[in-house]
Amino acid sequence: MFPLGNLLARACHRPQGVSIFQAGGPMTFCVPRVRVILEPMALARVGSQRTAMESQTMRELFYPKSVVVVGVSTSPTNMARGIVFNLTECRFKGVIYQVGRSGGVFAGRRIYPSVLQVPDELDMAVILTPAPAVPGILEECGQRGIRWAIIESGGFREYGEVGRRIEEEILKVAAKWGIRFVGPNCIGIINMENGFSTPFPPIGRMVKKGDISVVTQSGGVGISVLHLLANEGLGLNKFVSVGNMLDIQTEQYLDFLIQDPGTKYIFLYLEGIRQGRSLMEVAMRSSKPIVAFKANIGRMGKRIASSHSASLSSDDRVVDAAFRQAGIIRVHDATTLGNDLKILRLPPMRGRNLAIMSRSGGHAVIAADACETSGLNLVEFPREFLEQIEAHFRASVIKLTNPLDLGDLFDMEVYAKIIDEILARPEVDGIVFLHTFHAALESQASRELFSRVIRLSQTHDKPVALYVSTE
Amino acid sequence: MFPLGNLLARACHRPQGVSIFQAGGPMTFCVPRVRVILEPMALARVGSQRTAMESQTMRELFYPKSVVVVGVSTSPTNMARGIVFNLTECRFKGVIYQVGRSGGVFAGRRIYPSVLQVPDELDMAVILTPAPAVPGILEECGQRGIRWAIIESGGFREYGEVGRRIEEEILKVAAKWGIRFVGPNCIGIINMENGFSTPFPPIGRMVKKGDISVVTQSGGVGISVLHLLANEGLGLNKFVSVGNMLDIQTEQYLDFLIQDPGTKYIFLYLEGIRQGRSLMEVAMRSSKPIVAFKANIGRMGKRIASSHSASLSSDDRVVDAAFRQAGIIRVHDATTLGNDLKILRLPPMRGRNLAIMSRSGGHAVIAADACETSGLNLVEFPREFLEQIEAHFRASVIKLTNPLDLGDLFDMEVYAKIIDEILARPEVDGIVFLHTFHAALESQASRELFSRVIRLSQTHDKPVALYVSTE
Repeated sequence: MFPLGNLLARACHRPQGVSIFQAGGPMTFCVPRVRVILEPMALARVGSQRTAMESQTMRELFYPKSVVVVGVSTSPTNMARGIVFNLTECRFKGVIYQVGRSGGVFAGRRIYPSVLQVPDELDMAVILTPAPAVPGILEECGQRGIRWAIIESGGFREYGEVGRRIEEEILKVAAKWGIRFVGPNCIGIINMENGFSTPFPPIGRMVKKGDISVVTQSGGVGISVLHLLANEGLGLNKFVSVGNMLDIQTEQYLDFLIQDPGTKYIFLYLEGIRQGRSLMEVAMRSSKPIVAFKANIGRMGKRIASSHSASLSSDDRVVDAAFRQAGIIRVHDATTLGNDLKILRLPPMRGRNLAIMSRSGGHAVIAADACETSGLNLVEFPREFLEQIEAHFRASVIKLTNPLDLGDLFDMEVYAKIIDEILARPEVDGIVFLHTFHAALESQASRELFSRVIRLSQTHDKPVALYVSTE
Repeated sequence: MFPLGNLLARACHRPQGVSIFQAGGPMTFCVPRVRVILEPMALARVGSQRTAMESQTMRELFYPKSVVVVGVSTSPTNMARGIVFNLTECRFKGVIYQVGRSGGVFAGRRIYPSVLQVPDELDMAVILTPAPAVPGILEECGQRGIRWAIIESGGFREYGEVGRRIEEEILKVAAKWGIRFVGPNCIGIINMENGFSTPFPPIGRMVKKGDISVVTQSGGVGISVLHLLANEGLGLNKFVSVGNMLDIQTEQYLDFLIQDPGTKYIFLYLEGIRQGRSLMEVAMRSSKPIVAFKANIGRMGKRIASSHSASLSSDDRVVDAAFRQAGIIRVHDATTLGNDLKILRLPPMRGRNLAIMSRSGGHAVIAADACETSGLNLVEFPREFLEQIEAHFRASVIKLTNPLDLGDLFDMEVYAKIIDEILARPEVDGIVFLHTFHAALESQASRELFSRVIRLSQTHDKPVALYVSTE
C-alpha cells in the first residue's frame, strides 16, 4: 500500500498479493550504470588486491562431481540426513555417498564407517559431526585425495577456547593436504545450476533457478532470504553460507560470483567485515549490482554476533561510507531488498522526471509525496498532451494532471496505450503505475497488462515501476 | 526477515508466509495505557468540543433497515450495480431497492425509475449518478422521508467551479429536508455487523469481521487497507470513505467509532485536516488506540490531492506534534500499520527490558540491533537461570546469553517451556521470539506453539512478539 519511496520496481512477478515499495535511497535508480565514487583515488587501488584463489579453481567448490556427506546415521534426529535430503530433492547431478561411524543404510544408500572406505572417487566432503571429530575426518579426506570440504558443524571459536584450538588443528590438516573449505559453523552451498544443495535444514527445492546469488554470514538469515526470493517470485543462482570463514573469506566468494556467468545480481548479508579494504576493492571491480545488509551495528548485536558467527562489529558510519564508495547498495529491511532486486532489472532512469499513473487518487497522493521525498520531479504535461489522454476517458469527472488519476477509466488496453504515449515523451524518464485491482475479476486482464508494460518499458528503454494492491 | 524495530507483534494469524516487523516508534509499546502529552493544558480543552451529531443518531447511518441504490441500469458497465453486488455478497440484513432512470430488472430486482416509485419505507439512499443529477435525486429522497444518504458520485468541487455550485445545491436540499450524508466522491460505508456494504468497486466479502474500524479520505487507499487486513488475518468492524466531507466530517465519524461497542481499534487515512483542533480533541477523548496515516505532506502531493479529495495540505511537523499530543500513533507505511494493529492487541510492556529468543543466530543479531535502535534493553540473565535453560539443550555448542540462540534445539514443547520460564522472571518486560521454520514439515507444530505462546503471554500479562519466516 503506502510509502512508495523509490518505487521503480515492478511487481509483475506477483500479481496476486499486496506488494509494497518503500524507500531505498535515490542511487538505486541508476546503480547498474552509474557508480558513486566518494574518493576517486580509490579506483587506483583496483586491480592491486590479493585474490587468494583463482575463480577457475573456486568453480570446483560449486560444481563437484562426487560428494560424501559425513555424519549420517540411522537415527531419525540425525541432522546430516537433511543434507542428503536436499541434494536428492534438488536433483544433484553428481554422485552422493554417506559416511557415519555407526554404519547402516539411509535413503537406499550405504553409510560407510569412514571416508577411507567409500569405493569411488570423491572430490567434496560435507561434514556435520561434533566439532572434535572434524580434524580426524579432514585428515582422512586428505588421504583420500579430497581437496574441497564444507564444514557445517558448530562448536568452534564461537563457543570458546576449546573450539578455537580445534580450528587450529583443522587449519593444520587442511594446509597439509591442500584442502580448501567453507565454514565451519554454516549451512554451506546451494547451486541451482547443478542441484548441489548442502544445507542441513531440510529446505528442499524452495526457490526457482534464476540469476541472483547470495553470500551470507548467517545460515538462518540466508534461509529467510530464500523465503523472500520464493515469495517475491525471484530466482536464485548460487548461495553460500560462509560460517566462521576459517579458510575462504567473504571477498573470495564475492570475487568468484562477480566472474560467474550464471550470476547477474549479488546479495551479501554481513555481520562482520574482516578485510574491509579487500572486500571493497573486489566489490568495486564488479559490473554486477551488489546489494548488502549489514547487521551487528551496535553494542547489543555484538554480544550475540561474537558467539554466533564470531564476528566483530565495526563503526556503522564507516560501513556506510565504504559501501557508497564501492557502489554497494545498502538495505535495512527485507521489503527494500525485495524491491531493489526487482528495480535493478529495469532500465535505468536517465533523469529525475517521473510520471505517476494511478487507479486511485489516494495512492497518487502518497506516490507524489514519495516522489518529493526521493528528490524526483513530477513532469508537467503540456495541455495538448493532457487533451490527447482525456480522449480515452468516458466521463470527465477528473481533472487531468501528473499524477494522472485514472478515475473511471477501467479499460486496461487504454492503460497500456497511455503508458506507451507517456514513455514516448522525451521529458519523461520513468513511470510509476499504481494498480489497485480486484483479483477475482481482473486477474487475467491485469496479468496481460503487466506483460505489455514490461515490453513497453523495454521498447522505450525507460523504467515502469508497477505497484500492485489486491486481495 | 529483517528490521525488527519495535517488534512486539505476533504473526500467529499468519503462520504461512513471511511476516516482517519494522520500526514504528517506541511509543507503540505502551499506547493502550500510556498517553504521550506534550502540552498538559490541552487536556483542559477536552470535553469542550463541538459534537455536531449525537452518536445515537449517527448509528442510523451504519444500521439502515432499507436501502435504495440510485443509479442502477441494465448496462453491464453500470457502476452502481457494484453497490448492489456488495450488499448482496455481504448478506445485508435489510431490504435492497434499485432506482435508475431507464428502469428494467437487475439481479432479480426491479429498477424503479424514481425513488418516489419505490413501494416500501426507505431510510437510506446510496447515490451513484452523474453529479448534476444528484440535487434532484436528493430532493425526491427528502420527499420520500429518507434522512440519510451516501453520495458516491464524483465531479464536484474536486473537478472545479461547476462542481462546487452543485455542492451548494446539494447542501440546500439537504438542509431543507434534514438529510445527513456521506461524501460526495467516495465509496461509502462497510459495516461488518449487518452486511451494509456500499462501495461501488465489486469487492465482495474480502475481509473477515473483527474489531478494527477505518475512516479514510480516499476510497482507493481504503480498499488497500482492506487488502492489508485480509492478508494479515485481521478483522474489520466498520469502514467509511468520507469523500469531500460536504456534510459529515472526519471527526464526527471518529467520535461515533470511539463510542461504538463493536470498534476496539481505529485507523484513519487523512489527506487533509480541516478542523484540526476538533479532530485532536475527539481523538484525545478516545480510550481506544487510534493509528493514522497522513498523506499529502508536500508540494507535489498537494497538486493531486486538491483534485482528488479536495484536501489542503498542512505543515507536516504540526501534524506530527498534534498527533503526539492527541495520542494518535502515526505510521508511514503499510508494514508498520499491519504490525501496529497486532502490537496493540498484546499486553503492554511495563518497562524496557526485553528478552530475545531465536532459532537463527543471524536473526538474533538483527533483533538485538533493533532492540538498541528502539531504546530497549536486553536483560542480562543470571548464570543459574542460563544453566536451568541449558538443561533443555542436547549438545552444548552454543554459548547461552540474551539473545538466546536456540541452536540445535528443535523441540517446540521446550520453546514454550523456556518462554514460560523467561516470562516468569520479574526483570523481563517482554519477549521477541524469532521463529524460522520449514512449513512443509513444521506447520502443525508451529501453529500449536503459537497458540501456547498467546496463552502464556496472557497468563503472564507480558507481550511476546512473534516473528515468522517460512517459505
